Amino acid sequence: VNRAVTLASRPTGFPSEENFALVESDVPEPGPGEVLVRVQWTSVDPYQRGRMSTARSYAKPVEVGEVMTAQSAGEVVESNDPRFDPGDRVVGALGWQEYAVARGGSLRLVPESVPLQMALHVLGTNGLTAYFGLFDVGQPKPGDTVVVSGAAGAVGQIVGQLAKIAGCRAVGIAGGPEKTAELLTTFGYDAAIDYKGEDVRAELKEACPNGVDVYFDNVGGEISAAVHNRLNIGARIAICGQISQYNLERPEPTFYPSLLIVYRATMRGFLINDYAHRFGEAIPRLAAWVGEGKLRYTEDVVEGIERTPEAFLRMLRGENRGKQLVHVAD
Amino acid sequence: VNRAVTLASRPTGFPSEENFALVESDVPEPGPGEVLVRVQWTSVDPYQRGRMSTARSYAKPVEVGEVMTAQSAGEVVESNDPRFDPGDRVVGALGWQEYAVARGGSLRLVPESVPLQMALHVLGTNGLTAYFGLFDVGQPKPGDTVVVSGAAGAVGQIVGQLAKIAGCRAVGIAGGPEKTAELLTTFGYDAAIDYKGEDVRAELKEACPNGVDVYFDNVGGEISAAVHNRLNIGARIAICGQISQYNLERPEPTFYPSLLIVYRATMRGFLINDYAHRFGEAIPRLAAWVGEGKLRYTEDVVEGIERTPEAFLRMLRGENRGKQLVHVAD
Repeated sequence: VNRAVTLASRPTGFPSEENFALVESDVPEPGPGEVLVRVQWTSVDPYQRGRMSTARSYAKPVEVGEVMTAQSAGEVVESNDPRFDPGDRVVGALGWQEYAVARGGSLRLVPESVPLQMALHVLGTNGLTAYFGLFDVGQPKPGDTVVVSGAAGAVGQIVGQLAKIAGCRAVGIAGGPEKTAELLTTFGYDAAIDYKGEDVRAELKEACPNGVDVYFDNVGGEISAAVHNRLNIGARIAICGQISQYNLERPEPTFYPSLLIVYRATMRGFLINDYAHRFGEAIPRLAAWVGEGKLRYTEDVVEGIERTPEAFLRMLRGENRGKQLVHVAD
Repeated sequence: VNRAVTLASRPTGFPSEENFALVESDVPEPGPGEVLVRVQWTSVDPYQRGRMSTARSYAKPVEVGEVMTAQSAGEVVESNDPRFDPGDRVVGALGWQEYAVARGGSLRLVPESVPLQMALHVLGTNGLTAYFGLFDVGQPKPGDTVVVSGAAGAVGQIVGQLAKIAGCRAVGIAGGPEKTAELLTTFGYDAAIDYKGEDVRAELKEACPNGVDVYFDNVGGEISAAVHNRLNIGARIAICGQISQYNLERPEPTFYPSLLIVYRATMRGFLINDYAHRFGEAIPRLAAWVGEGKLRYTEDVVEGIERTPEAFLRMLRGENRGKQLVHVAD
């Protein structure tokens, strides 16, 4: 039997567990060129909120009744693709379910030396998002000040460390004193601002005495407006996400394009799939930095596929501490 | 006697002639390294609205009582800079006045072959703004669709023609049927949309069957929102101006940064002064295209320094037809 979490209904505003259903079906059979994977870990990420909605996006929405889209990692059970054998460890867009069938070409092998769940964060989508978003879109130079919103999240915790590796000053914004303490102690940020308890504008002024050269934006809204206020001439703003907007019934415009003239600044949106041809550049570098202790990560694990909606909602509320994962099976 | 137009008071909302004063003073004496210029032409441009305000900008505001900032062109009367002789024709930031003193290094010589007022538009700030904004910020490729707002204005009329020279499809948005007719007949735009009389969203769909690759934005607001709706993946948005916002008492945010993720698009603000080291690249090219008949321009001339505020307000209301100039003296 295969258990899967499907979209039961589309949310209005903040989603709830009622928007999901746990459904059982037969374990699927792989067709020609396909691979059957037994999922061990699955991932919850902010972008999945977009897939629940029919609002304009870069990808098709999940249809009501369909399995939720997700990166998952597991073990090959049966393979009709000569590149994969039973027992191989793989990662791909396998969804929130215990068994998944996928075309072999859509899967990546995970080396034996790598814990499987790391292929879902620091050596997977989150790490790649941090790498290309910071280095390609943000274009940091040594000495630059890099500000990161959502800095304690799965992407943000990596961005700050990559900024340090690049010789920058890293300033993180996160919600609550536990998270900001972790930014300083675990993730090597030079300064951390608690947007829930502190005056972000005043703290930014102190934390960025030389202004902001790169802003890695995961959140949008008021927090971003405070950062935009301190940009330097020629600043780069990498738009990775806008989580403050995802659960609004009617998102409103939040940005003044004139600001980009004032600072001769660049604001650019990016999507990690566009960098697929360069994953082979990034993954060994990320793995080496992890091995050298320069790149740390934290995981927040929920047990059981049936608790995936709960894990997803925790993450949307910012209650996770580090990368929110669901452990589906051993 | 020198007559000058000064800022008499700061406007709230749309400015009026009462915000300016015509003042008389002695003709100034040039100090060491300085040049005295008798102004023959002066320029009115949207950016001057910004100089009247203390709102955050890329340049200091004009103080109340100071001569309004402007590019002006004229003849050298007296020179303490060995690079200039009396009778030389020059252009620079000389302000709205009949006589101005400036450091020699801030002036550019205008060749005898060039009508002086052209150094204020197609071979001056407007042409340079179009050139660097389109080619450097917009990065058009042959076959791209380039949309220009404020397309009949001093910059916009040039941008469309440069887009054609670059092998692109040029689509212009302007106010009123006379302006859109001129876009098609005089300035070689492939399609023109009248935002006052037509449904911009519907017309854009028809005018841009392959979407929008480059958006050269002079206006912001609703018109730009309609264009953002039709961007292609990887589109570039060059923020040249946001004239729809300049006279609002309380400008509101107008843009959703999430759109840049949907389209993996780049929005960048620019300022022509940052390209000063490359004016020598652009001016001969612009001049050659003018000579070959590939780059046309229209002028709208008001007579007399005392009518400069009137010319400025006409331009802000969009009543000018082509580059709005003030003829100060023969």
